[in-house]
Amino acid sequence: MARFSVDEAMLRAVALAARGLGTASPNPVVGCVLLDPDGEVVGEGFHAYAGGPHAEIVALAQAGERARGGTAVVTLEPCDHVGRTGPCSLALIRAGVARVVIAVPDPNPVASGGAHTLRDAGIEVEFGVRAAEAEAGNVAWLTSTRRGWPYVIWKYAATLDGRSAAADGTSMWITSEPARMDVHALRGTVDAVLAGVGTVLADDPRLTARNLRDGTLAIRQPLRVVVDSAGRTPVGAQVRDAAAPTWIATAAEVGAGPDGRVDLPALLAELHRRGVRAALLEGGPRLAGAFLAAGLVDQVVGYVAPRLLGAGPTALLDAGVTTIAEAIDLEITDVTRIGPDLRITARPRKRES
Amino acid sequence: MARFSVDEAMLRAVALAARGLGTASPNPVVGCVLLDPDGEVVGEGFHAYAGGPHAEIVALAQAGERARGGTAVVTLEPCDHVGRTGPCSLALIRAGVARVVIAVPDPNPVASGGAHTLRDAGIEVEFGVRAAEAEAGNVAWLTSTRRGWPYVIWKYAATLDGRSAAADGTSMWITSEPARMDVHALRGTVDAVLAGVGTVLADDPRLTARNLRDGTLAIRQPLRVVVDSAGRTPVGAQVRDAAAPTWIATAAEVGAGPDGRVDLPALLAELHRRGVRAALLEGGPRLAGAFLAAGLVDQVVGYVAPRLLGAGPTALLDAGVTTIAEAIDLEITDVTRIGPDLRITARPRKRES
Repeated sequence: MARFSVDEAMLRAVALAARGLGTASPNPVVGCVLLDPDGEVVGEGFHAYAGGPHAEIVALAQAGERARGGTAVVTLEPCDHVGRTGPCSLALIRAGVARVVIAVPDPNPVASGGAHTLRDAGIEVEFGVRAAEAEAGNVAWLTSTRRGWPYVIWKYAATLDGRSAAADGTSMWITSEPARMDVHALRGTVDAVLAGVGTVLADDPRLTARNLRDGTLAIRQPLRVVVDSAGRTPVGAQVRDAAAPTWIATAAEVGAGPDGRVDLPALLAELHRRGVRAALLEGGPRLAGAFLAAGLVDQVVGYVAPRLLGAGPTALLDAGVTTIAEAIDLEITDVTRIGPDLRITARPRKRES
Repeated sequence: MARFSVDEAMLRAVALAARGLGTASPNPVVGCVLLDPDGEVVGEGFHAYAGGPHAEIVALAQAGERARGGTAVVTLEPCDHVGRTGPCSLALIRAGVARVVIAVPDPNPVASGGAHTLRDAGIEVEFGVRAAEAEAGNVAWLTSTRRGWPYVIWKYAATLDGRSAAADGTSMWITSEPARMDVHALRGTVDAVLAGVGTVLADDPRLTARNLRDGTLAIRQPLRVVVDSAGRTPVGAQVRDAAAPTWIATAAEVGAGPDGRVDLPALLAELHRRGVRAALLEGGPRLAGAFLAAGLVDQVVGYVAPRLLGAGPTALLDAGVTTIAEAIDLEITDVTRIGPDLRITARPRKRES
């Protein structure tokens, strides 16, 4: 295999980690590259699914005896606990690696301590190489683990003039097929898809991740969550079908906020308890407004079609803003053309309170 | 100077032509590169302002005797009439050029015929080199000359969710200073800036092209046009100040459409008669809707700020669309980040009637 510097090996490990996005959850995505003492790559691995082997274990199995005296380059601090698999720290010690280079420390109090165990065994441990890249690749898991509720992505589709449907309510389709396929790929990277009951009543969406060409379902389906304060989701709604698990989250079950509706922080805490690390908020405009007003959105993904309507429902309502100084400021992190449309990715700027 | 192929020389001529944008009007922008028989550049020129020398004359003056036997590469067919300057066709013949390569024929019936005169004098004439680039660089003049009314650019500024102001009407500022400076540069490339009387009453804009840092006015100011069906523009409105010429276009003067408001095709015809080739439509949402509904917009330039409001006036209203199949479809031609904002440029797709 190739010869890599530790920096190059970490970039490779970050790329490997990304392959587990959408399937590793509720575990983090992790990538590992093993270098022998000459810097030659002798093993690679990533954490593909919860319950499956960790990245380090896969890489060590590939390297065998060639790992001895070498360097393990890993995107996240190796685990130190016996969960569904044995602790990676012990596996690295047993394999005889001399050095472990870690991008990001494990914020999970149950799993952390790997670095300490490794150092106790005389292994050189280094933190922080390509930490920004590794952090970005694992942002949903790291964010949700640090604070105890899911990373929330608000996704919307609108025309250039901000309409999500025409005056008569028709909206199929605002965006192009390539953009809608991209939404399904996005659903495949999260653990839950959220919609308000108004959207369910108006559009009867399925909220599954599927191949739009042949209609086949993705192997792993996110939990479908209907935010339904008063329990109005019809018995025959498509979101209740057998294609994916569904939770109708009512105020009676979750608890109500001051407005009598589902308490959103309580909803997110319960989703986290159920293993949800990344959640995709898909509509409607008032639910999005409530999440944004409460500061509960971590990322905005807008699919903007180059069309104009001049009338019809808007993509966002009631976000708690009445004057320009209160506008919710975002920072654009990416703009990509998808077919004829634009996908604009942004994150809210920290607000001074 | 450098040695150029004819193709390279035409690209250079297109770039030269662009320097006249905003000052050449109501004339076209034109660039000219003269090559001697060995392909060496011996003269360059562009048409800088109406009444000034044409591109060919500037380049010929620079080349002098070195033009003899050479090739004139010019973005637009040389004029054949005695306007404010003598005909370029005769100047090229007198200078003894052997060949003239033209990107785009002159659609102006008064000025065209240059190619015919050149051929009659035994000069080889070729059309079509880099025609797409030259056409794009001259799109406003060519379009307006061919059809008899100005090229209309609709400019708007909005948040990511399509709002042009907050719920309380505040809008200063939706977009960043770099984006607003770009708008002033855009104003500097057009012959007229249009706004509805509603915008004048609400915001009292100046509609001048100026340097936002020090407030100084651009040397050439576009005509300010207030579309004011009933003549409600206040006597003290800033748009009436001495900084630039202003026309308050009333239904009484221009003529009224079926709705009693200023007839837009008649307005555009009158602007063309007054020498306006490119017009910038700046607001408000209903005037933009009327222009779009009538198919009178040639280009859309949206300044989109990464902010969310969830309430407040929208950038576009009453565009004659009631159902999704009637949406006004655009094609995005450019997306550029300007400071924190996006500038999205698009043109309407041809509509089947």
